[in-house]
Amino acid sequence: MCNHSVSALNKVVRGSKRATYEKDTVYQILDDTFMCNIGYVWENNAIVIPTAYGRDKDIIYIHGSLKNRMMRGILETGKVCLSITHLDGLVLARSAFHHSANYRSVNVFGSVREVQDADEKMKALECIMNHMVAGHWESVRKPNKKEFDATLVIAVTIDTASAKIRAEGVIDEKSDMNSDYWAGVVPIKQVAGRPESDEKLAKGIVIPDSVLTYVANNR
Amino acid sequence: MCNHSVSALNKVVRGSKRATYEKDTVYQILDDTFMCNIGYVWENNAIVIPTAYGRDKDIIYIHGSLKNRMMRGILETGKVCLSITHLDGLVLARSAFHHSANYRSVNVFGSVREVQDADEKMKALECIMNHMVAGHWESVRKPNKKEFDATLVIAVTIDTASAKIRAEGVIDEKSDMNSDYWAGVVPIKQVAGRPESDEKLAKGIVIPDSVLTYVANNR
Repeated sequence: MCNHSVSALNKVVRGSKRATYEKDTVYQILDDTFMCNIGYVWENNAIVIPTAYGRDKDIIYIHGSLKNRMMRGILETGKVCLSITHLDGLVLARSAFHHSANYRSVNVFGSVREVQDADEKMKALECIMNHMVAGHWESVRKPNKKEFDATLVIAVTIDTASAKIRAEGVIDEKSDMNSDYWAGVVPIKQVAGRPESDEKLAKGIVIPDSVLTYVANNR
Repeated sequence: MCNHSVSALNKVVRGSKRATYEKDTVYQILDDTFMCNIGYVWENNAIVIPTAYGRDKDIIYIHGSLKNRMMRGILETGKVCLSITHLDGLVLARSAFHHSANYRSVNVFGSVREVQDADEKMKALECIMNHMVAGHWESVRKPNKKEFDATLVIAVTIDTASAKIRAEGVIDEKSDMNSDYWAGVVPIKQVAGRPESDEKLAKGIVIPDSVLTYVANNR
């Protein structure tokens, strides 16, 4: 079992029994979605911006416009916090106090560098797309020089991270167990609907397997 | 039409035609979910933490343990950034470059104060719960003194905010329109499953209407 290092920055203090620093768990939570929230400091303000990402081992890739303030901002400070949360359920207790949620969340604290090597940059773009829809890179027109040059790619090396998971039923006070209040869990998940093909599609073009598989795996 | 003020902090520069500062739009996006990402500055690091919230006019309430680092941190700095994102679809273009997502997102920049007035505090707890499941406050045991005192409630007054919305189909280069690549949108949504009643429920207790309505509205 391989763990991320623990410091005051990433140590989970509240609800610490739900915390883990195990790399495989952190990676699995990161791989189960493709949207993260980036936190960065701008003129003493914390700003949070959602963005897509891909992961390759301990590197997370994000991309954006050359002039994107968030992207420029994290390059300037050299560091970033990424937050990912899967909401898995509402935990509705008998008591207001014990209401909770089932979730899997990760906080990543990382170092930031611009990806300038053309090979790594193209691989990073492939990584981000395939992280969203596995294998879809093979079904699209690749970036031409103008598009490639207009895209800023940033590599975030995971310096440390923590995960927090709640995956259980209601926990109520013993004294409430025989009360008349209902308690239970409402499962929550994110699902994909039927793909809506572009109306202007050339004739005879079918939905690629990558998309069909994505939808089948997210019903 | 009533707008939030626009400054360098909240002005959307990239993709500005998708931006709005209209209060009704911002409020609607805030009211369509109950989990936000809180950004705050801790020892020069931006940290992002997911948490539940409720909204009452231009105030957002959050709650947590008295010792919660995020809660203590934002009280110390006096300000906070809240980010909310609904992912509505994957926009899969013919070209890698024009891939995008449909989404509704809001960034709130607010001032922070601890809610100390007991009446406001109890109303804030009701607001947070009813924001998650409308009307559910009437179906739970209310906090007793010990629980009430152990809960820290923070009011975030919305100083300014911005929303960004993408809700359209694929936009590709004209030169790609007759290519052999597929393009389309995969709708994404968050859904609720069938409520799972606690096994230890006292006999004869039925699922409250608030929960049934929530599930019916989130299928």
